Amino acid sequence: MLQSYLQDTWVTPTATEASAADVHDAVTGDLVCRVSSEGLDLAGAFTHARRAGGPALRALTFHQRADLLDAVAAAVRARREELYALSARAGATPTDARYDVDGGIRVLRDYAMRARAELPDAPHLMEGPAERLARGDDFLGVHLVTPSPGLMLQVNAFNFPVWAPLEKLAQAVLAGLPSVVKAATPTAYLTEHLVRIVADAGVLPPGALQLVVGSVRPALDLLREQDVLSFTGSAATAEALRTHPNVVACSVRFNAEADSVNAIVLAPDVTPGSPLFDAFVREVVTEMTVKAGQKCTAIRRVLVPGEREPAALDAISAELAGVTIGNPASDGVRMGAVVSLAQRDDVRAAVRRIAESGRFVHGDPDKVRVVDADPERGAFLDTLLLSADPDAAAPHEVEPFGPAATVLAYRDTAHATDLIARGRGSLAASVVGDDLAWTTAFVREAAPWHGRLHLLDSANLTQTTGHGSPLPALRHGGPGRAGGGSEMAGVRGVVDLMQRTALQASPRLLDSLGGAS
Amino acid sequence: MLQSYLQDTWVTPTATEASAADVHDAVTGDLVCRVSSEGLDLAGAFTHARRAGGPALRALTFHQRADLLDAVAAAVRARREELYALSARAGATPTDARYDVDGGIRVLRDYAMRARAELPDAPHLMEGPAERLARGDDFLGVHLVTPSPGLMLQVNAFNFPVWAPLEKLAQAVLAGLPSVVKAATPTAYLTEHLVRIVADAGVLPPGALQLVVGSVRPALDLLREQDVLSFTGSAATAEALRTHPNVVACSVRFNAEADSVNAIVLAPDVTPGSPLFDAFVREVVTEMTVKAGQKCTAIRRVLVPGEREPAALDAISAELAGVTIGNPASDGVRMGAVVSLAQRDDVRAAVRRIAESGRFVHGDPDKVRVVDADPERGAFLDTLLLSADPDAAAPHEVEPFGPAATVLAYRDTAHATDLIARGRGSLAASVVGDDLAWTTAFVREAAPWHGRLHLLDSANLTQTTGHGSPLPALRHGGPGRAGGGSEMAGVRGVVDLMQRTALQASPRLLDSLGGAS
Repeated sequence: MLQSYLQDTWVTPTATEASAADVHDAVTGDLVCRVSSEGLDLAGAFTHARRAGGPALRALTFHQRADLLDAVAAAVRARREELYALSARAGATPTDARYDVDGGIRVLRDYAMRARAELPDAPHLMEGPAERLARGDDFLGVHLVTPSPGLMLQVNAFNFPVWAPLEKLAQAVLAGLPSVVKAATPTAYLTEHLVRIVADAGVLPPGALQLVVGSVRPALDLLREQDVLSFTGSAATAEALRTHPNVVACSVRFNAEADSVNAIVLAPDVTPGSPLFDAFVREVVTEMTVKAGQKCTAIRRVLVPGEREPAALDAISAELAGVTIGNPASDGVRMGAVVSLAQRDDVRAAVRRIAESGRFVHGDPDKVRVVDADPERGAFLDTLLLSADPDAAAPHEVEPFGPAATVLAYRDTAHATDLIARGRGSLAASVVGDDLAWTTAFVREAAPWHGRLHLLDSANLTQTTGHGSPLPALRHGGPGRAGGGSEMAGVRGVVDLMQRTALQASPRLLDSLGGAS
Repeated sequence: MLQSYLQDTWVTPTATEASAADVHDAVTGDLVCRVSSEGLDLAGAFTHARRAGGPALRALTFHQRADLLDAVAAAVRARREELYALSARAGATPTDARYDVDGGIRVLRDYAMRARAELPDAPHLMEGPAERLARGDDFLGVHLVTPSPGLMLQVNAFNFPVWAPLEKLAQAVLAGLPSVVKAATPTAYLTEHLVRIVADAGVLPPGALQLVVGSVRPALDLLREQDVLSFTGSAATAEALRTHPNVVACSVRFNAEADSVNAIVLAPDVTPGSPLFDAFVREVVTEMTVKAGQKCTAIRRVLVPGEREPAALDAISAELAGVTIGNPASDGVRMGAVVSLAQRDDVRAAVRRIAESGRFVHGDPDKVRVVDADPERGAFLDTLLLSADPDAAAPHEVEPFGPAATVLAYRDTAHATDLIARGRGSLAASVVGDDLAWTTAFVREAAPWHGRLHLLDSANLTQTTGHGSPLPALRHGGPGRAGGGSEMAGVRGVVDLMQRTALQASPRLLDSLGGAS
């Protein structure tokens, strides 16, 4: 039975074997742990965050909070091998595990550096310049950004059990908010181990980080006006959280990153066989296979000019044919399992819906050859490349959250811009091409539908960090279906978690407020 | 029967006298007009906004959009006397009318100036500086802010029938969004006349401004991912809009300015009889009487040190005794009527709830002496000053949306910070004092609960624009009970209506995108 970390103590829920949820190894199907929040004192945890964690963080300056992030990063780095090993149980290859674990460490360090470089050595931020609001020099306007006396309730998705809590923690700590982390059940043992590493290190103030394993639903009634509810996961859960009566009544700040049906677009000027075309193919295959396609940013729709479709399907299929699937602990395995049998079933159902208006070009949703594992006990899926009618609904609406993507042929530029918007808002899209005028025009149409655009050309194809990687410097979060949220984007992600208050005051008062406390 | 302005045409609803809502003169009780949206083609209006208004605005640069705002301002200014005259029917004095009408013109002009000074002569904004995202110089990150291909549905409150639509229009036009304005029923004839003036002038592109008189509820199902729903009004209506299934399903951007129980705080250092004490008294009385206290920012709670309470009550009461109430068209009348008899009844009920833990110090909720009007047919109220138990619930929770305020005595600074937070989030608060250390410490505690803090001291007491005035330079919108929204704050209010997209691109592409279209 997995423990929760509440009020600086590891607590075992009161659930029985029957009332708890089982979590299975994605590769072997063995039971890993049981999960429940029965009998946990969530109200006590919230009070502890408000009375201990919040005041301790708010008393620090941004630079001091940055030091905490570095200390957390060092603690996780020192024991990252333990997290790598556990990640294999979730179906992750060593590369996938580093993406999750090292990615989380990098976000902490990046935010620590940013805070020192871009935020003052003070607990709050004054946004100037001061503006004269009337005749005379003694009535000036500025904005003061202060930490909210509340907490962040993190509701995480299963796919980044290490990166996601750390990414949110980085911004929350800098904003002066204590965190209550809800671990996603299918990978709760990884988030639990992460919190154990941080707790063991004793680097955060008491109450600054707590962990709830199991359902966090009762905690939604405990949220208050100064709290933040930060969610990553499905659009359906986002809706339920956003409309929760107490969340609404208290105007609780709510941020959602929801899965979206992200696209890559091959521009008309890119010819098969060119290095840029090969980069496009690599990008598609990487997105399909990293973490077995279980990324909220992963490419689901591959938009290509009609005349390029055969070449694109051939090239992607050829690359996919070289992907070895199986036990992620085995040598030579490039793609592991999805997180659970239930997830595998969801993906199968999703690709079948898309296939109603198309066909499978590579892979079989019901069969897969695996290395060093039982394909039925483990949650394995073949890489699944489809081609579908671009004007059908399913390819734009249905998201197979696994190693699957659909090629859609566009007729002309207007058709391509229309198709990309049919995702109804996405976290990220890639555009691959060297034709400046074409890409510029396309970006202007596509930008309002996206949180991030990754624009690959012959100049940067060897430098890219990849379509799927959210970076601390850049906004993560898209409009519409993607949830309408925003995280990161440098220090903006920190400021967004704080309260911005307009001040009308005399210069001497602004001077007094501007200094460190 | 009041007309709506849809698809660039004035349209009469199909409602009968029985099915429409009557709007009465606040002063005489006479029927002014009838209001209904029956039979209006709202879907046609939305389509027109999307097909005509949006593309026309998005094709313009920020500077060209600024020219539109100046043209609207000039059109309204040329006919503002008509709006002043009509305002009297809503109970507004000439001062109140100028606050609403001239205030609206000022916001348009201010935003036009800001756009020219702070935004590029291009349709979109590139937020730099570009950051290197990898080794090499060809993979850079910036944020591109583009107009969303949607519309703004404005749902306005009755109290600022001219300022509120213009304030939202200013930001929407600059953001490239066409507006569909829903007029609040009790003052719909004023918003209708405003739109008539703008439409007559022919200064906006077709489809950039439309008006719905009557219920706009069916239109909520027409909103899409790229639209903005901008609301000012009660917390209850904000909740209904925020949780509307289609608004949630499409992640429609929602902004709320809800009424809040705003406070003014007299610091311990201010002595009765001093100029700063007098300024404090004036601020309270102004907030109670301007627009008969019907401002979402108006002061409802007056926090004073215990030992100052008698002096504060005496001084405020004395000033209130000099306020002549009556027909706003009559000479010497300083305060007119509230907007309707229903509003009067709401205020009476609210002050009675507060009086359960306190008493009336000035005024009688059931009786009022008025000049040149019938106190029963008109929606008149006396100025109502209460004193109440500061630790009771009602003074912090109940908002009498009229000429009423409650004095609450605080014991010490900790008590004062605790009391101000009991408003659960406010649009604005004032702090009056010269003690730098005290005010600095108080502001740090109070800031997270407020959208704006107005800090009055001996240096700026003659320069202030007043507690109740939202200014384009400053954020308007507070956390929690105040709705958690944000408007204005300079160009930030424009950018917040647009889509911010992270770009990862080579320098040559960023150069190509950065230029004017």
